[in-house]
Amino acid sequence: MSQKLSRSTIRLTGSPSVVGSAAVGGKKEGEGPLAKYYDILCDDSSLGEQTWEKAESRLQKDAVNKALEKSCLSTTDIDFLFAGDLLNQCISSTYGLRDLEIPFLGVYGACSTMAESLALASLFVDNGIAVHAAAVTSSHFCAAERQFRLPLEYGGQRTPTSQWTATASGAAIVAHSDKGPFIKEISIGKITDMGITDANNMGAAMAPAAYETIKTFLQDTNTSPTDYDLILTGDLGQVGTKLLLELLQKDNIDISGVHNDCGLMIYDMEKQDVHAGGSGCGCSASVLCGYIMQEITAKRLNEVLFVATGALMSPTSVQQGESIPGIAHLIHLSSSK
Amino acid sequence: MSQKLSRSTIRLTGSPSVVGSAAVGGKKEGEGPLAKYYDILCDDSSLGEQTWEKAESRLQKDAVNKALEKSCLSTTDIDFLFAGDLLNQCISSTYGLRDLEIPFLGVYGACSTMAESLALASLFVDNGIAVHAAAVTSSHFCAAERQFRLPLEYGGQRTPTSQWTATASGAAIVAHSDKGPFIKEISIGKITDMGITDANNMGAAMAPAAYETIKTFLQDTNTSPTDYDLILTGDLGQVGTKLLLELLQKDNIDISGVHNDCGLMIYDMEKQDVHAGGSGCGCSASVLCGYIMQEITAKRLNEVLFVATGALMSPTSVQQGESIPGIAHLIHLSSSK
Repeated sequence: MSQKLSRSTIRLTGSPSVVGSAAVGGKKEGEGPLAKYYDILCDDSSLGEQTWEKAESRLQKDAVNKALEKSCLSTTDIDFLFAGDLLNQCISSTYGLRDLEIPFLGVYGACSTMAESLALASLFVDNGIAVHAAAVTSSHFCAAERQFRLPLEYGGQRTPTSQWTATASGAAIVAHSDKGPFIKEISIGKITDMGITDANNMGAAMAPAAYETIKTFLQDTNTSPTDYDLILTGDLGQVGTKLLLELLQKDNIDISGVHNDCGLMIYDMEKQDVHAGGSGCGCSASVLCGYIMQEITAKRLNEVLFVATGALMSPTSVQQGESIPGIAHLIHLSSSK
Repeated sequence: MSQKLSRSTIRLTGSPSVVGSAAVGGKKEGEGPLAKYYDILCDDSSLGEQTWEKAESRLQKDAVNKALEKSCLSTTDIDFLFAGDLLNQCISSTYGLRDLEIPFLGVYGACSTMAESLALASLFVDNGIAVHAAAVTSSHFCAAERQFRLPLEYGGQRTPTSQWTATASGAAIVAHSDKGPFIKEISIGKITDMGITDANNMGAAMAPAAYETIKTFLQDTNTSPTDYDLILTGDLGQVGTKLLLELLQKDNIDISGVHNDCGLMIYDMEKQDVHAGGSGCGCSASVLCGYIMQEITAKRLNEVLFVATGALMSPTSVQQGESIPGIAHLIHLSSSK
């Protein structure tokens, strides 16, 4: 059963668990500092498929199958599958997962999708709507570049504020269990638009949403940043992280001692030439479902706030001069029930 | 509280209500047989906006605001808003609803979005996660044509199996109430792909999904078609409807006496030149949130199965030679608790 702490923050009194999770990455992710936490690393970014889009679908399928294997479950055990991605009409998810024959609920939260899908899966389990529910998302550098920016062959220069879309996927299976990581609370964000119009500066567009969601959650739970080992934003990168810390400091909330960002963790910021950091649904999904879940399971991390952020624009809306709305959803993960 | 009847069918024991709903339509919808059931009809399909995409955003905003007005509620009363649409990255929803400042959960189910969003809103209310939750979706003929098919200026011929994307939106507010329409059960569909590759024949691509979901629901609830006044599919149109009836008849399930399809109801099939019928998220959403909700409230319809169907393809997936996966989600609405 779930208990409302406020309009948008819910305590999951049954504390459902992530009974299995998996992270899949590409070549660049395999050269980064978190390489050893990935379950599958693909040297060839086509994954043996004929198009980048089919390769991204493959990432999701592999992530779900690996998470099932690690949970000792099969597809027929999963009542509901929540999935979404960045490609037009979420085709990575629908084509990647169609053969699994699991009741399917598509979500769209841009790069916040891992938090949204995991929140819904957790709420379904906590309220007995599902016995097992799964959450998955992905991104692929090549599929995203050609859809959102320029053909890869063009070899365009990237601006200093731009982020590198991860070729990666993360999947998690939620169920009731005595073993963690446990889902304790979730907080659903509002769409926040501060008027940023630079499509090469997603971090700045998403930071205000992360600020709103973190502030709301701390208020609703009457906790402070020091109650957590880690407050982990999705993929704000260098620019967005700086903005987030500044916005919170204006309210006398200092998370600098416990904050990190998936976009700053997934690549070596000195050596891997990713400019302002990593991004894409697969960035925060694979960092969460690989490194973070393993650290919580090993109790090296005990209280983690995962705050995935999304930029809710499209190339069309940007071309029409629109600003970029952001959103952030939060999940409180704990090593103890 | 929700009670699992099977893997994918849930009984909502609290029977939450649709406490307010609204339908918004364009000029062609206002010339159709259901015109009088629309709350707002716009003669100008630009809705005074500068682009078709902004016009579609406006449809959603108007639908939510009208549904709130009819429910005697304001935006601050709504705990969660579920929304999605057909445009790339769901921009009709995110831009249309960003000013409402309601915690937002984006969904993607193509033309099944009304059923998916209403199902999630109903489950949230039934389990006390939300006091009030809202569901909304939309489509716009001009925005959809240029995104999925050809520039409007091209004036391309449409094939006989093609359907006409409705310029419309539907919104519903769910809460506990003594007055109906009540949500009794929901059933979430699986992705179903029978290998249809013709992007101008969505009805055929979606019919197998509707077949699977209806058959599963009748089995799970141990009911038969005659227990319902109306089994209403989303937008299968003429081609998909014929296929659905045939598929069910092979299993000795005859729904022909109680079946209708939103795509066949929204326009005058003789006079309005829409070929195989209406389609688009806004088609089933506006038929449900206008005509159907009013008929259930007036108890002229008492037991209705709303089965919205979606084709989970994109122009890219079709160009890459992929078949078109379909999905269908079902909601059982009743005039009595």
